[in-house]
Amino acid sequence: MSTSFELPASFRLGFIGGGQLARMSAMQAFRFGIEVGAVCSESGSDPMEKVTPTIFRGDVSDYDTLMKLAEWANVITLENEFLDADVLAKVEQDSGTPVFPSPETFRLIENKRIEKETFRNAGIPVAPFRVVKSEEELPKTGMQLGWPYMLKSSKGGYDGYGNKKVSNFAQAEAGFRALGGTEGREVIAEKNVSFTRELAVMVARNEQGTVTYPCCETIQENHICTRVIVPAPVNRSIRDTCESLARKAAEAINGKGLFGFEFFLTEDDELLLNESAPRPHNSGHFSIEACSVSQFENHVRAVCGLPPVQPTMRFNAAVMVNLLGKSSGDAVLKLPDYGQNDEEIHVHAYGKTTARPGRKMGHLTVLGNNPDTVLKRALQAESDTRI
Amino acid sequence: MSTSFELPASFRLGFIGGGQLARMSAMQAFRFGIEVGAVCSESGSDPMEKVTPTIFRGDVSDYDTLMKLAEWANVITLENEFLDADVLAKVEQDSGTPVFPSPETFRLIENKRIEKETFRNAGIPVAPFRVVKSEEELPKTGMQLGWPYMLKSSKGGYDGYGNKKVSNFAQAEAGFRALGGTEGREVIAEKNVSFTRELAVMVARNEQGTVTYPCCETIQENHICTRVIVPAPVNRSIRDTCESLARKAAEAINGKGLFGFEFFLTEDDELLLNESAPRPHNSGHFSIEACSVSQFENHVRAVCGLPPVQPTMRFNAAVMVNLLGKSSGDAVLKLPDYGQNDEEIHVHAYGKTTARPGRKMGHLTVLGNNPDTVLKRALQAESDTRI
Repeated sequence: MSTSFELPASFRLGFIGGGQLARMSAMQAFRFGIEVGAVCSESGSDPMEKVTPTIFRGDVSDYDTLMKLAEWANVITLENEFLDADVLAKVEQDSGTPVFPSPETFRLIENKRIEKETFRNAGIPVAPFRVVKSEEELPKTGMQLGWPYMLKSSKGGYDGYGNKKVSNFAQAEAGFRALGGTEGREVIAEKNVSFTRELAVMVARNEQGTVTYPCCETIQENHICTRVIVPAPVNRSIRDTCESLARKAAEAINGKGLFGFEFFLTEDDELLLNESAPRPHNSGHFSIEACSVSQFENHVRAVCGLPPVQPTMRFNAAVMVNLLGKSSGDAVLKLPDYGQNDEEIHVHAYGKTTARPGRKMGHLTVLGNNPDTVLKRALQAESDTRI
Repeated sequence: MSTSFELPASFRLGFIGGGQLARMSAMQAFRFGIEVGAVCSESGSDPMEKVTPTIFRGDVSDYDTLMKLAEWANVITLENEFLDADVLAKVEQDSGTPVFPSPETFRLIENKRIEKETFRNAGIPVAPFRVVKSEEELPKTGMQLGWPYMLKSSKGGYDGYGNKKVSNFAQAEAGFRALGGTEGREVIAEKNVSFTRELAVMVARNEQGTVTYPCCETIQENHICTRVIVPAPVNRSIRDTCESLARKAAEAINGKGLFGFEFFLTEDDELLLNESAPRPHNSGHFSIEACSVSQFENHVRAVCGLPPVQPTMRFNAAVMVNLLGKSSGDAVLKLPDYGQNDEEIHVHAYGKTTARPGRKMGHLTVLGNNPDTVLKRALQAESDTRI
């Protein structure tokens, strides 16, 4: 297989979506002299609006809008999962502009049932699950999976939305109905896994190679990731297994691009693949400064057909903290005091002009060689930062 | 003195100029959620054009154009020296928008005679020089400074343009005329210093503090910087002296912003300040990946009133290589093979769509812990890269 390191003149990368993930990938595209365009919402305040003059206004699932992007770009990539694989496939075919990750890959991920079947068939452990065809199956499902169990809509879930934990038949029935099960939407039931930690691994992959990022721990509060600890504070062998499962998962979906895989670590130290994302991921933000090559560089490389580069950690430890809006109003930026310490602190604001409680406004990463000190500094920096 | 770490909501930074230096500073401004605008040329192909929708088209010395930028921005900064201090001062006064570095600082630097007098008065060694008022003084000047000596126009020189090395009276007369000396332009004569190396130090400074970057060696070919070696391969004491002279120089001009200072290291290990630049500098590009805080972050911090942060080196050694156009035509990007080595390689392309021989199209930085290996890898990477 021959290896290509070359981009043609005036290369253009199109993003379906104008959020912070596209924005951070765009920063890397710019570093390679690549021009960037994006589909942005009618609000006019998407993070991408401020960093490129090339905006295609409309919905990320709208064929006509995507065709405009496709006619402008050399390659198109994604930054979220709220897309329609059929529309993606049609845009790719009609425009001749490649979409990476491919619509075929996306089709495997956009539906939770197909996703879990695909990974299970590839020998990657997932939590036991089954499709619930009707309300009548709910009690039997409880017998099979044990109470409580999870109900999830096969399509459209995100950060825990579209998921219901149900502890008895009445809750199950209500959940099934709320998820659209009685209106013909596919609902799956999943064993409620007791996990000790949630781990995540980023993988960049295309026909030129596959690389993985260090296994990290993600810490969620109210279904939102608040912190990421790198490397995950677990045995080396668990991290190695996790990284190798993530690589296998990227292969199972024939992934071309950047992928995030989230795992449960059970009380028995078993790893179960929980979710996958076909795009840069919050659990990889640490790599901007902690690694020799960031997830965003490898995202751009992978979708533009350049060889992905195996990242190495520059420091023993990294902690990433999401900076969530604390109240509603104009966003400001109050930086922490970087001080004269051994740790590095890096603050990122996403250019969102309006804050809302819980909104991801930015993140900060602290790097150093002592994991305890790094965590302490990160928490201090978080409380000193306002955004 | 109280320390402010805070930016107001929707902060806007305006750049006078749309070249690669503004572009790289803009990348850092974006990381802080700052909005960026720039005065760009009529060509429509300045590096900034692709990374911000906010462009003010016109000349960087045109009052009306600068006023438009000033009315849009919270703060204005520079990216080159081809400006007019009087226009800057008038724009600052009429708009109320601060300009950093200030017009007063700029006034001291834009004129080589005043610059050298300022530094000499502050106790910073500079090469012996004198003003040449007329052709009649040229032979006497040769007696005083020795032949050959340098003739320089006080204003408008850059990368060696506007400088003439003269070895005899006929050359001196021709040079004096070519520099406009006979038409009333101020010309200075400077001793032709025999130096063993050229060193450089970046300084970021505002009312909240002063920080310096590690002293590096710059290597020029045909008056263009081709490589930068960090740290400069000279005794630690020379590097320390150089850094402390640079800090003193930034203070001497009351600098608020980012400044580059270039020094000659003479055969007697004496340091002479040669040139200063009131902006990010080619000799500081290594800092993007080699340091905990890049020159571009400190540029943005210093001009936006945030405290500059003292950078530390992440690696023992860094080599930056300028990627110069090799022929005329469409720019492409051929990356080197990053390989599986201990060194990091980082390639930056400036988004210039057309190459010309000798045009600065981008740069690459190699980082590692063994200076010899780093240099070897850098030269290899340079020959593998096309742009």
